[in-house]
Amino acid sequence: VPPGPDDAAVTASATLPELDKEALAALERVGKGWHGCLSPREDWEEALPVNRHIEFADPVVSRTGRFARVRGTDPSGDGHGDIDEIEATAKAGEAASPTGRRLRSAARVLIGPPLRSTALAEERMGRLLALAVLSPDALSSVAYGPEAMLAVLLLAGSGQLKLSLPIGAALAILMLSVGLGYRQVIKAYPHGGGSYIIAGDSLGPRWGLIAGAGLILDYILTVAVSVASGVEAVASAIPSLYPDRVGVGLVVIFVLAAGNLRGVRDAGAAFAAPTYLFVAAIGLVVVTGLVKAASHGFTPTTPHPYHPPVEALGVLLVLRAFSSGATAMTGIEVISNAVPVFRPPEAKHARQTLTAMLALLISMFVGVVLVAHFTGAQPGGQETLLSRIARDTVGDGAAYAFVQFATTVVLLVAANSAFNGFPRLLYFMARDSYVPRLFLRLGDRLAFSNGILVLAVPSAIIFAAFDGKTAPLIPLFAIGVFIAFTLAQAGMVARWLRERGRGWRAGLATNLLGAVLSAAVVVIAAITKFTEGAWLVIVLVPCIVVLCERIHGHYEAARRALTPRAAERSHRLLPAGVARPGAPLPATPRDAELQDTPTEVHNFTLVPVAVFDLAALRALAYAASLGQPLLALHVSPTEDEAKRFRREWEVWGNHLPLEIIASPFRATVAPLTYYAAALHRQRPDLTMTLVVPEIVVARPWQQILHSHTAARLRRALRSYEGIVVATVPFHLPP
Amino acid sequence: VPPGPDDAAVTASATLPELDKEALAALERVGKGWHGCLSPREDWEEALPVNRHIEFADPVVSRTGRFARVRGTDPSGDGHGDIDEIEATAKAGEAASPTGRRLRSAARVLIGPPLRSTALAEERMGRLLALAVLSPDALSSVAYGPEAMLAVLLLAGSGQLKLSLPIGAALAILMLSVGLGYRQVIKAYPHGGGSYIIAGDSLGPRWGLIAGAGLILDYILTVAVSVASGVEAVASAIPSLYPDRVGVGLVVIFVLAAGNLRGVRDAGAAFAAPTYLFVAAIGLVVVTGLVKAASHGFTPTTPHPYHPPVEALGVLLVLRAFSSGATAMTGIEVISNAVPVFRPPEAKHARQTLTAMLALLISMFVGVVLVAHFTGAQPGGQETLLSRIARDTVGDGAAYAFVQFATTVVLLVAANSAFNGFPRLLYFMARDSYVPRLFLRLGDRLAFSNGILVLAVPSAIIFAAFDGKTAPLIPLFAIGVFIAFTLAQAGMVARWLRERGRGWRAGLATNLLGAVLSAAVVVIAAITKFTEGAWLVIVLVPCIVVLCERIHGHYEAARRALTPRAAERSHRLLPAGVARPGAPLPATPRDAELQDTPTEVHNFTLVPVAVFDLAALRALAYAASLGQPLLALHVSPTEDEAKRFRREWEVWGNHLPLEIIASPFRATVAPLTYYAAALHRQRPDLTMTLVVPEIVVARPWQQILHSHTAARLRRALRSYEGIVVATVPFHLPP
Repeated sequence: VPPGPDDAAVTASATLPELDKEALAALERVGKGWHGCLSPREDWEEALPVNRHIEFADPVVSRTGRFARVRGTDPSGDGHGDIDEIEATAKAGEAASPTGRRLRSAARVLIGPPLRSTALAEERMGRLLALAVLSPDALSSVAYGPEAMLAVLLLAGSGQLKLSLPIGAALAILMLSVGLGYRQVIKAYPHGGGSYIIAGDSLGPRWGLIAGAGLILDYILTVAVSVASGVEAVASAIPSLYPDRVGVGLVVIFVLAAGNLRGVRDAGAAFAAPTYLFVAAIGLVVVTGLVKAASHGFTPTTPHPYHPPVEALGVLLVLRAFSSGATAMTGIEVISNAVPVFRPPEAKHARQTLTAMLALLISMFVGVVLVAHFTGAQPGGQETLLSRIARDTVGDGAAYAFVQFATTVVLLVAANSAFNGFPRLLYFMARDSYVPRLFLRLGDRLAFSNGILVLAVPSAIIFAAFDGKTAPLIPLFAIGVFIAFTLAQAGMVARWLRERGRGWRAGLATNLLGAVLSAAVVVIAAITKFTEGAWLVIVLVPCIVVLCERIHGHYEAARRALTPRAAERSHRLLPAGVARPGAPLPATPRDAELQDTPTEVHNFTLVPVAVFDLAALRALAYAASLGQPLLALHVSPTEDEAKRFRREWEVWGNHLPLEIIASPFRATVAPLTYYAAALHRQRPDLTMTLVVPEIVVARPWQQILHSHTAARLRRALRSYEGIVVATVPFHLPP
Repeated sequence: VPPGPDDAAVTASATLPELDKEALAALERVGKGWHGCLSPREDWEEALPVNRHIEFADPVVSRTGRFARVRGTDPSGDGHGDIDEIEATAKAGEAASPTGRRLRSAARVLIGPPLRSTALAEERMGRLLALAVLSPDALSSVAYGPEAMLAVLLLAGSGQLKLSLPIGAALAILMLSVGLGYRQVIKAYPHGGGSYIIAGDSLGPRWGLIAGAGLILDYILTVAVSVASGVEAVASAIPSLYPDRVGVGLVVIFVLAAGNLRGVRDAGAAFAAPTYLFVAAIGLVVVTGLVKAASHGFTPTTPHPYHPPVEALGVLLVLRAFSSGATAMTGIEVISNAVPVFRPPEAKHARQTLTAMLALLISMFVGVVLVAHFTGAQPGGQETLLSRIARDTVGDGAAYAFVQFATTVVLLVAANSAFNGFPRLLYFMARDSYVPRLFLRLGDRLAFSNGILVLAVPSAIIFAAFDGKTAPLIPLFAIGVFIAFTLAQAGMVARWLRERGRGWRAGLATNLLGAVLSAAVVVIAAITKFTEGAWLVIVLVPCIVVLCERIHGHYEAARRALTPRAAERSHRLLPAGVARPGAPLPATPRDAELQDTPTEVHNFTLVPVAVFDLAALRALAYAASLGQPLLALHVSPTEDEAKRFRREWEVWGNHLPLEIIASPFRATVAPLTYYAAALHRQRPDLTMTLVVPEIVVARPWQQILHSHTAARLRRALRSYEGIVVATVPFHLPP
């Protein structure tokens, strides 16, 4: 199955949704009503006073190079389509002001020149490359998962660290089970589809949202944890760096955000190296460690110094250690989300890659736990557990430096993968109208700039708030992702039960086990780490779900209000009578199609005039030229001023109707607004146009010297339907 | 001479300046040109589709009570004037939104209901009341002036405190001389007129600005110093209050600002009490002190503890002490600024009151210096000098409490007087276009709200920055006011030399002496206190002057650009052809008067359409109903989307010309802007109207869910002359 265009593909035109069939039918019906109201399009075309294809001969137009002429097609085939088309060049996206342009070109250094929408087609990857690109998130968690588990066990004293072996085994089974579950996901969703899509698809939108909310939180925490852990890995090798870890980490997050705003897509090879380096490094440590352990007859070293127990060993503590160790599983789902990036046959290649990744993950995790056991390494202090194990096994030399380097780099690549996944998740949620549509917008580098920024800022704040340390972040981490695991696997279960395709029993069993085990992790983590921070995730997930549903409700209401409907009877959709360019509108409505409703736009113009200056005269001339009934308005704070203004009006010639509103309390904008509203109440069928003169200053600081009545009126009148505000600019010299 | 309407009077209509004779003539000429372009006003009046006097019978209109109908006059006498007039009630100034209304009514509790412009007429005052209301600023400085002088002398050791007697005598002479100079000011400016007006009038605008800048700084410092000194006076009596002085002082400044926003004008009697209480209190201290001194044969007590000298006694130190003591003179000019508030004969009463105030000021100042000398009181520590003298003379009981209470209250009243003077100064400077016009606006309580806020905020910041202490503020203080004194007196000298009226020689001598002595104080203070803070004032005064002149330059340029001129030839001032309501505009210009220029407004409408929804249809219908040449625009991020949109346009019926701009870099607003600009370059004589659909949401939080293209287009197009932006609202359900 080739990747489909709708499910998991990103397009640049998602911001402009397509009309559905019903809406098109309604549009056609509405359009027929217009036939009686407008002179033929040819008249309008002829009346155009300008060359719509722009005068490219104009030296200013050609010099700025903002537009290019391209040969267009004529899809209608009726001869009226365009022959030429105008294309906006990259320069047309630049600001007009020199300051704006300078700022932009400074940003360009960081994020690169704009990219065409057509550059969006993703490169396909082979299995080896895909494994390297898609697995850092999962594999890198070996750097902190075992340590998080041991740190909990250590609370029961150094003597209980040996419990890491059974717990590690349980985690390996969990990894296998969830991983196999995701192999089934790849089969079912060959276009790719994260937990959000699977759960929403199979269990219903709200379950999808819960999965999405869990993932949103976990992406943010992934960045914070990976960067914290990466910086700690460096600081283990170079202890003098430890006090500066927050600053270093913030710089790293900034660089990651900037790099992703650049939209580094083709850097696959660059990302491949760290993954394989890390696999090699862990392999080196594990093999050396096991060989050394074998030379001692697999007798574990007694942990030194001996930490006395501070908590009693109980079921809760063991479960807590288990759930902390489960953080090593984050990222296991990444391959199943990204099936379309594989070379065909995508699904098969993806499944093979997932299997390889599972094998690596489980052996690395188990290996680290074993070596930690045999070397008697304990967590705590400023050095990471992995660093201690490495020192114990490969010694303090170049091999150690290599291990730490590989660990750091793979953690940064893992943080980076969140910058890929998070904006894509928001894109899909925005396409379903659950988050603001601004997450649909592709920046001019084809990156989801908004999503990248919304990930970078909170993760930087959390990283700094937790003082750049991994340990206190662990209790918050992984709950969200296990909620998503649970729902994705449960979604698969529901799907198997519904579809019962080939091999459904085996698939059902796999996914059911995965769902149950994942759910168990969620429950265990929520209970055992509630007071340590898990409560925050448990509170935030429903909050995010409610927020998303409210956003969805608004978008749905907006869609219903905005889409042409079959029963459309709204006036204001048809111009009055037969409109033609340069011609008046007859006073009586003419529309056979919709004659049961008032179908005309009747215009009425109000012109507020404060001072009788050239700006006001220009607005009056413009308003009069529209040829609609017109009333000028003046608001006067005192009797004297009213008389003075009327005198000036008479001097001018008293050409147009004028109403003076006395405003003895000196308010201006509010009385104008309420007056317009009161007139509008008399004839709600009228479209009232306020023609407002607006002073435009040449320098920003001069804005404080003027009163901004136009802007204030516009804001005040926004709440009235059927009132159009037209601002007539008057430019002041600098 | 009765107070004139222009010089020193405040009017509510100053925000709407009158056209001068030349502008009126030009307006008449321009208006004649319109005769040929418009059908008679009667046609326009008849075409009005609404009752311009509002349907008061409409229950909504009558219930909200925002407008009242008043019997109007018909000033033109041609029968076309209004018979009824609409008056906006106090309710018409309120916000429409419930939140806005609630906020407003909360503020109303603090600042009271709105007042009519007609309530502006100031009450006249008798001499005794005027003395009490106008002199706190001057008299209260006796609370800190002597202490400031002694604090400098103490640097030369306790033994040199006796120098306060000759320096005090010199200051008394200075007070007398400057005070007599201001008696001459009252004669010359019977409408009142502060140093800003006098210096500007006699020496030229820049000198007026220098005086104004000095006064601006000193008003701010007056608030800070008076509040600091008042709080210190309380803390001298109640030492436990000392650590909280900054908080207490900030509350006081807030209360003063709120009180003045209320526009407490008629509280004259309330302000009279503190002044006379303070006079009585100082009188009590001085008389008791002198009687006690007499009983010891006027032998001064040796200061105890003895402070050794930390600086050598020299001319500079003496001069520094002199200039510090001169802070006791601030406020001496207040009466001459406020002549119109006296009962007639204003000037005579004002002069008499000034003489009385001078007598009080000099005797109180000299008295305090003498008693300090005889009691051997020294400044320093947390207790004020005045408090020590009071304890020494009237003892520690009720009389002492009375002195401290009176001192505190009079200092607060003095700070309050700055809240009266400062906004008035800014009003006059704004009337001359030297500061932003927003300082002309009278709040709905007839107070200059903007001026009050601009005083309160910096004075609160300075007060807090100086830790609520008077002593470190003294070096900054009084330089500004002495600059103003010097320029006012110098202005009077120039005036005498120019006019040589009755008694000009005596007047000249008085003002010359005042000018020279004031200038000497400025120079002395600037030199001796330069490093202690005076440099700040010396730097800020020219900065303020330059800023004011730049503001003036802008307003002058704006006035020239906006005022109708005799040589007016601008097109766009006349509507095209003969405009009449509901009628088309002929294509050829018709204007006998201005036929040498293109005189018509030719309209051309652009309608940007992103998605083919009802908002877009409404905008298209509105635009078509204007009957002007029209072009719809669509910006498309991808080829596919362009095809899709064209298909939808065809389904609708392809009624109007459509141009699709391909934007492969996905920018929307910028290409639209540049495209409109490129069309506008082809025919700069066209007035281009962009009709933009605008989605209006019901709840503020929903704004983030929409793209605000209309607002962004409006902002981007502001810099182009001749492009009108009309926004057609489409309201979404909540």
